[in-house]
Amino acid sequence: MPQEPRIVIVGAGFGGIELAKALRKLPVQVTLIDRNNYHNFQPLLYQVATGGLEPDTIAYPVRRIFRRQRNVACRMAEVHSVDWERSRVHTSIGTIPYDYLVLATGSATNFFNFEPVKEQLLTLKSVPDALNIRSYIYQNLEKALANYSGESLEEIMNVAIVGGGPAGIEMAGALAEMKIHVIPRDFPDLDTSRMSINLYQSGPRVLNAMSEEASAKALTYLQELGVQVKLNSRVASYHDDRIYLEDGTSFPTDTVLWTAGVRANPVKGLPKPCEGKGQRILVDTCNRVIGVPEVFAIGDVAACITEEDPRGLPMMAPVAQQQGRHLAQNFRRLLRKEELLPFTYNNKGVMATVGRVRAVVDLPGWKFQGGFAWFVWMLVHILSLVGFRSKLSALYHWAFNYISYDRPLGLIIRPYRREETSGIKTNSPERG
Amino acid sequence: MPQEPRIVIVGAGFGGIELAKALRKLPVQVTLIDRNNYHNFQPLLYQVATGGLEPDTIAYPVRRIFRRQRNVACRMAEVHSVDWERSRVHTSIGTIPYDYLVLATGSATNFFNFEPVKEQLLTLKSVPDALNIRSYIYQNLEKALANYSGESLEEIMNVAIVGGGPAGIEMAGALAEMKIHVIPRDFPDLDTSRMSINLYQSGPRVLNAMSEEASAKALTYLQELGVQVKLNSRVASYHDDRIYLEDGTSFPTDTVLWTAGVRANPVKGLPKPCEGKGQRILVDTCNRVIGVPEVFAIGDVAACITEEDPRGLPMMAPVAQQQGRHLAQNFRRLLRKEELLPFTYNNKGVMATVGRVRAVVDLPGWKFQGGFAWFVWMLVHILSLVGFRSKLSALYHWAFNYISYDRPLGLIIRPYRREETSGIKTNSPERG
Repeated sequence: MPQEPRIVIVGAGFGGIELAKALRKLPVQVTLIDRNNYHNFQPLLYQVATGGLEPDTIAYPVRRIFRRQRNVACRMAEVHSVDWERSRVHTSIGTIPYDYLVLATGSATNFFNFEPVKEQLLTLKSVPDALNIRSYIYQNLEKALANYSGESLEEIMNVAIVGGGPAGIEMAGALAEMKIHVIPRDFPDLDTSRMSINLYQSGPRVLNAMSEEASAKALTYLQELGVQVKLNSRVASYHDDRIYLEDGTSFPTDTVLWTAGVRANPVKGLPKPCEGKGQRILVDTCNRVIGVPEVFAIGDVAACITEEDPRGLPMMAPVAQQQGRHLAQNFRRLLRKEELLPFTYNNKGVMATVGRVRAVVDLPGWKFQGGFAWFVWMLVHILSLVGFRSKLSALYHWAFNYISYDRPLGLIIRPYRREETSGIKTNSPERG
Repeated sequence: MPQEPRIVIVGAGFGGIELAKALRKLPVQVTLIDRNNYHNFQPLLYQVATGGLEPDTIAYPVRRIFRRQRNVACRMAEVHSVDWERSRVHTSIGTIPYDYLVLATGSATNFFNFEPVKEQLLTLKSVPDALNIRSYIYQNLEKALANYSGESLEEIMNVAIVGGGPAGIEMAGALAEMKIHVIPRDFPDLDTSRMSINLYQSGPRVLNAMSEEASAKALTYLQELGVQVKLNSRVASYHDDRIYLEDGTSFPTDTVLWTAGVRANPVKGLPKPCEGKGQRILVDTCNRVIGVPEVFAIGDVAACITEEDPRGLPMMAPVAQQQGRHLAQNFRRLLRKEELLPFTYNNKGVMATVGRVRAVVDLPGWKFQGGFAWFVWMLVHILSLVGFRSKLSALYHWAFNYISYDRPLGLIIRPYRREETSGIKTNSPERG
C-alpha cells in the first residue's frame, strides 16, 4: 500500500480549521501549522478589546479541536517560505515536505499611506492586539485622572477610529457604551463630556459592503450613542498627537484605532505571476494556485478573478469556511483521480452590531435591524464559537453585561506602550 | 470645620484593601495607591499558571471594589520613596502629601544565592508571572514535540520546583495532574514518561509551617501523583540547564520554578533603624513604624518583634487582613484622641491543596486531610474571592475541570522568553 498523501495546511484560521476537520475521513496525513497554538474568532476580537469577553472565550487551542482526529498533527511554527519546486515549506521548526500544500494564511492590516506611523496606531487583528487596546484604554483613563503629563484631557481621552467597516463600527459602538455606562462608574471624577469618539469613513456610508438600509441604520445607532461619524472624510496624516483630514481639519488624540484596510498575508516563495491585487494569491475556480502544481490557497489570502467577481470574493470568514469544506471534497475527488469541482460561494447573509439591542442584518431575502437583529447576531456568534465551554462562557459574560450595563474586564495586566508620536507635544486648540 | 485627615495607603493587597474598606464610615480622605489597577488573590495564582482559572477570576480592578465608597480615591502609580520628614510620598504621578501613611507593600521573591541567575528562574508572585509560567509550559511542550533544538526531551519537559511551601506543593500537584490527565490528550505523540517533576525542599518536611500530619499527608499525595520530592535537598546552583544540589547531584531542566523564599518589599526613604530582618519594616504592637511618626505598616512588609514572635508574624494573607481591619479601628480611636489598641493575631487555621480531592487543613483544634479538606479548601477560596462574578466564575471553571479532568486554558498569547542559561548546552547523562 502506498503511503498516504501528506497535506500541509498553513494557517489555523476559519479556512484551515474547516478544511482539516472536513478531511477527517480521508486517507491522508494532515499537518496543520500556525504561528499561534490557538484559533481565534476574529469577529469578536472587539469584545476582548472593550472588556466584554476574555480571550479564552474567543480563542481555542488548535490541538484541542483535533484531539479526537487522528490524521491531523498540529505544529506551532512560523512558516518562512515555500519551496514549491521541491514541494516543501521552510519553517521555524525545520523543513516540512508535502504532497499537497494549502495556504490559508489570511490577511493582515494594510496601513496605506499611514505605513510610516503604524507603530503609533492601534490595530485589531489578533488577541494580543485586542489586549493591548484594552490596556491602553484603561491606562489612558488612569492617566487622565492623575493628570500629571501636561497633555490635555481631550488628547488623552479622545478616540479616533479610522474605517467604517464592521470592525470600526463595532469598536465605536462598544467604546461609546463604555463612555456612557462604565467610565462614569469607575472614574466618577473624570469629565467624560471632554471625551469624543470620532469615526472616519472615506466613503459616503458606513458598512459599505452591506445594504443601504443597514448603513443608514448603523449610522443612526452610532449617532444615538454619541459617536461623531465623519463620512467622506479621508484621513491624511497623524503627527503631534493629532489626526489630520484631507480637508485640513484635525482632531487631538493619543488613540487612533486603524481598521481602514486589509491586505492578504501570503507566504514568500511563490512565483511572481500568481500575486494579485492587495497581495492576494491568484487561484483558479478550484482554489489551485495559478501555475504552481500541488499548491492551493483558500480564504482571505486567495483571489479567484472571474467576470462576476473581478476583485475576487470578499475577505470574510464564511468564504474561507466554505472554501475549506469544498477543498476537502476536492481532495476526495483528487484521491479518486476524478475531475475537481469549481467552488461557488453561497452568501448566507452579513451582520454587524453597534451596541446593546442595536444590530443590522442583511439576509439574501430579508433585511432587518434593531433588537431582534441583535438577538440573531448574538445567537449566531455564540453558536459559531468553538467548543461548548466557550459558548457557555460567552453566554454567561453577555448575560452579565446585558443585565449590569457593565464591562467587567478592565485589568491592565501588561501595560501597553505605544510608540510616542513624533514632534513636539502641542496642546493648542483645534485648527481648521 | 477642619479638613478631613488624608490617609495614604500604599499597596492594594489583602492588608491595604481591608483597611480601606474598614475606613468606610470614618471622616477621612483615603488615597489607595498601587502599581497595578487590580488587586490579585495570590493564593490562587498557581491556578492561573496551570490553566485552571483565568486572570479575571482571581484579579479584580481596585476601583471597582470602591465604586460605592466615596472616601477612597484609587491611583495607579509606582511609589518611588517616602519623605517622612515632610509627610509626603514621591510617585510616578507626582508627589502626594499625607497626614497618615500606611505601607502595605507586601513581599517580593528572595532569590538568596540564586540572585545572579534569577532571570533564568520562573517565579509566581504576580499575574504576569503566572501567565508567563503557563505560556512557558505550553511552549516547551510544543518545542518537545517539534524536537528541532537538539536538546534532550528530559531537559525540555522536566520541571524543578524549589521550595516546599504552599506555593511549591500546589504547583507541583497541579503540574503532576497536567502530566497525567491533560498532556497525553493534547500531545499524544509525546512520551510523558520522560518528564519528571522534582520538588526540592531544604528541610526535612514540606509545608513546614503546618502540622506534622499535614506535612506527612501532603508528601504522600505528591508521591501518589508521581512528584519526586527531595527532602533535605538544598539547591546549590543552576547552570548549563541543570540544577545542582549541595550533594553534587544534578537534574537536567529548562524549567526552574523558584518558590523558596520571600522577603519584604519596603518603600525607600525610611530611616535605617526601622529596617528588620528580610527587609521587613519594624513596627510596634499598634503597627506604627518605629520612630517614624504618622507612618504605619501592615501585612507582609511589617514585623512586630515580641517575645512570643521573635521573627514577627508569618507573612500570610489573614495576618494582613486582620491588621488592616484593626488599624481602621485604631484610626477611629486616633481621631477621637484615644489610646491605640495593640494588635493580636487570631489564627483561624491554615490549608493547602495538592490536587483534586487532596488537601490538608490545620484548624486550631482540628486537623484533617483528604476529600473533605479539599472541599473546605474550595469553599473557603471561592468565598474569599472579590465579587459575585469572580466567585461564580471560579465555581464554573472548577466544576468543569473537576468533571472533565481537564485544564482548558492553554493559549500561548504572549510567548514568554526566559533568559537562556549560560554556558554550553550539554546533553550528557546525569552526573553524580
